[in-house]
Amino acid sequence: MRKLVTSLLLCTSLYSFGQNADSVAIRKIYNEALSNGKSHEWLRHLTKQIGPRLSGSEGAQKAVDWTKKLMDQQGFDRVFLQEVMVPHWVRGAKEVAYIQNGKQKTNVPIAALGGSVATAAKGVEAQVIEVKSFPELRALGAEKVKGKIVFFNRPMDPTKTITFDAYGGAVDQRAGGATEAAKLGAVGAIVRSMGLAQDDYPHTGGTRYGTGVPLIPTAAISTNGANLLSKSLAENPNLTFYFKQNCETLPDAKSYNVVGELKGSEKPDEIIVVGGHLDSWDLGEGAHDDGTGCMQSIEVLRIMKALGMKPKRTIRAVMFMNEENGLRGGVKYADLAKQNNEKHIAAIESDEGGFTPRGFGIVGTPQQKEKVIQWKPLLAPYGLHDIGPGGGGADIGPLVYIGTVLFGFKPDSQRYFDFHHTAADKFEMVNKRELELGGASMAALVYLLDTYGL
Amino acid sequence: MRKLVTSLLLCTSLYSFGQNADSVAIRKIYNEALSNGKSHEWLRHLTKQIGPRLSGSEGAQKAVDWTKKLMDQQGFDRVFLQEVMVPHWVRGAKEVAYIQNGKQKTNVPIAALGGSVATAAKGVEAQVIEVKSFPELRALGAEKVKGKIVFFNRPMDPTKTITFDAYGGAVDQRAGGATEAAKLGAVGAIVRSMGLAQDDYPHTGGTRYGTGVPLIPTAAISTNGANLLSKSLAENPNLTFYFKQNCETLPDAKSYNVVGELKGSEKPDEIIVVGGHLDSWDLGEGAHDDGTGCMQSIEVLRIMKALGMKPKRTIRAVMFMNEENGLRGGVKYADLAKQNNEKHIAAIESDEGGFTPRGFGIVGTPQQKEKVIQWKPLLAPYGLHDIGPGGGGADIGPLVYIGTVLFGFKPDSQRYFDFHHTAADKFEMVNKRELELGGASMAALVYLLDTYGL
Repeated sequence: MRKLVTSLLLCTSLYSFGQNADSVAIRKIYNEALSNGKSHEWLRHLTKQIGPRLSGSEGAQKAVDWTKKLMDQQGFDRVFLQEVMVPHWVRGAKEVAYIQNGKQKTNVPIAALGGSVATAAKGVEAQVIEVKSFPELRALGAEKVKGKIVFFNRPMDPTKTITFDAYGGAVDQRAGGATEAAKLGAVGAIVRSMGLAQDDYPHTGGTRYGTGVPLIPTAAISTNGANLLSKSLAENPNLTFYFKQNCETLPDAKSYNVVGELKGSEKPDEIIVVGGHLDSWDLGEGAHDDGTGCMQSIEVLRIMKALGMKPKRTIRAVMFMNEENGLRGGVKYADLAKQNNEKHIAAIESDEGGFTPRGFGIVGTPQQKEKVIQWKPLLAPYGLHDIGPGGGGADIGPLVYIGTVLFGFKPDSQRYFDFHHTAADKFEMVNKRELELGGASMAALVYLLDTYGL
Repeated sequence: MRKLVTSLLLCTSLYSFGQNADSVAIRKIYNEALSNGKSHEWLRHLTKQIGPRLSGSEGAQKAVDWTKKLMDQQGFDRVFLQEVMVPHWVRGAKEVAYIQNGKQKTNVPIAALGGSVATAAKGVEAQVIEVKSFPELRALGAEKVKGKIVFFNRPMDPTKTITFDAYGGAVDQRAGGATEAAKLGAVGAIVRSMGLAQDDYPHTGGTRYGTGVPLIPTAAISTNGANLLSKSLAENPNLTFYFKQNCETLPDAKSYNVVGELKGSEKPDEIIVVGGHLDSWDLGEGAHDDGTGCMQSIEVLRIMKALGMKPKRTIRAVMFMNEENGLRGGVKYADLAKQNNEKHIAAIESDEGGFTPRGFGIVGTPQQKEKVIQWKPLLAPYGLHDIGPGGGGADIGPLVYIGTVLFGFKPDSQRYFDFHHTAADKFEMVNKRELELGGASMAALVYLLDTYGL
């Protein structure tokens, strides 16, 4: 009990102090973001003028050039590129797919999964085995799977209140389905889209081929398409599924992380990173994934400059390249940090969409987490209640090996998987205030990290 | 400190108990809502098949008939109507408005405010006085205002993190602007729309005429229109503004509250109300305002039935009529409750949109609030952190006089004023999961109120 009392007292005294100084600073940050925020207009440019930015594409290069120029124009102390070689996968001509049920042919929306091989030029047509899990597939055995298309149809669990938990419970099908199917001699793998809405958008996303198994073509089917296919199979298990896709993996391409920096006034060698990933899938405009995280990160530095804040430590906005299909940018950034002996005390990633802020997940020691959790009274007035253990973010993940404390920005998750990796991930789906509140929340955490260290 | 410790212990023991029983019940409620929720499909019917439902309109009557039938079909123990006479205002032909700046005529989007009189048939055209507040207007005096159109242009404050606070800080212009302007001899009042987005949607809403002053026509202008008018006035203070509107107040019409009920098994005389308002403004489909609140309220009873819950107390879903321009349904409901000597222990209203739940505002004694706040550990896992003093809701407000504890359901507020009272308030703007989480949150609170009383 004494411990509880002590921690309560600590909490109370911190709060009193906070009310006198930090809470004023944080209020100013939110006021600046909500009155003069620039992230929404920047995002309009990134999504509407540049558009999709798959690694190795022309869009990705344009985004590198433009964000560098944008940060230069903001007058940050230093803006620089980090060269990195990235995978270069291209979708090619739009996919075609249909269910052939007796004489009835019904087109369904699919999208090749990133990294997949193409079908033969004439497409592939075969009977379908529907399964909900890898164990179920393995139990069927090669005899029943050989020569067929495996249809992975386990939906995301709608009862998970945080949708990322539902995603985590289903995404193995997308990542490993083709490999598991190929092990048993399947000729293709069709995966139910990772989305909670019942609609006609196929959700692309990365797949991974295992070594020593044939590379079979794999695609996502929309949830409506999956429901139809499942219903049709129940009526006629002998129906066939046809699909044709034209994707291709080209040689690795040269690309860049883009970094903007405000130099620390007292401890310039201690670095705090705030970032998102600049690349996106090719189907939409890469708005919530992850144009919002990039624009919010630049906005954090803009806000600090606009308010005349002189950070003690060096603050960096990092646009990571190639989160979606390789993570090469994140790995490169951490490699260079290690190589250059840079001390990164903290890194914040925004890669869960531009929705209303809920909190931050923390990856660090119990003491580090406790320190941050004690800032809650300063952040709760802005709806940031969910501050505690949790994931950081893919791009900043490799920094954990040099002792960096990682923070994953957590916005409200309900709508994210309506857009994620689809053609619906467009600028219009981003609310200006929600986006701005996110940037302000990240700036508030940067302010506290800069002021108190970790 | 002892008090703190005691309350911590209390909290802890309640939580332990909760984990053993209440938390299981609440988890089931959310699971049912997210797996088998019906509110979204019901809302589709209400908005797409019935549409706008201004008091006295055909749409309002259709909504009464349909919600009664819907609750009958759900097999609730009792479904009944409460007759109430409501104001009957009609917009008539679409409004026309333009800025006449020298030879340049620019059309701008306006919408007559509910309850406003029409202009003369040929419209009204006059010079414009722009003000930000009533004191500023009064300081100008009759000499400068007489014969002119007063343009109230104080924006909602974007730095308020809860948008309802920004609304509360600006809505006096809409409610009282025409009267204040008429006192000084103005011939019309144009009010900047109550919205935070810069767009072309005028936001209608109720205006109130004071007694003893001329009734002058008043309309809302879109935020883009307001910005243009203000800019044009800065360039040319002598420009004129023209508007024509055709609205009319007809004799009061007969309408109804619609009530569905699950009868209490132990204390049937103690009533818990959950409700929203069935009427809407005429410009959109009345989706977030307040189709969502109505459908969530019916969903609360459906969930309880589906889970085989036998409430100890009587639970009522109430569709109140005429919240928007009269509150006659809310007043009538409380009058009847008093007249029939009904004991209403609690009432929950959902009228802030169908967005992700954040909490509940409570109107009650400190002891009652404290009791509810102790349920936080059961509700926080669902994102309901914001539980404490706050407003209840307009329709349930009159119940305070018979000792009812009032609860206002608080969803995330960031997007609400993008739609509120505009043509954009449509079904498509409502996310299924956000809507369902709201209904589940209301059901969870009803469950706790029913189990523990107040």
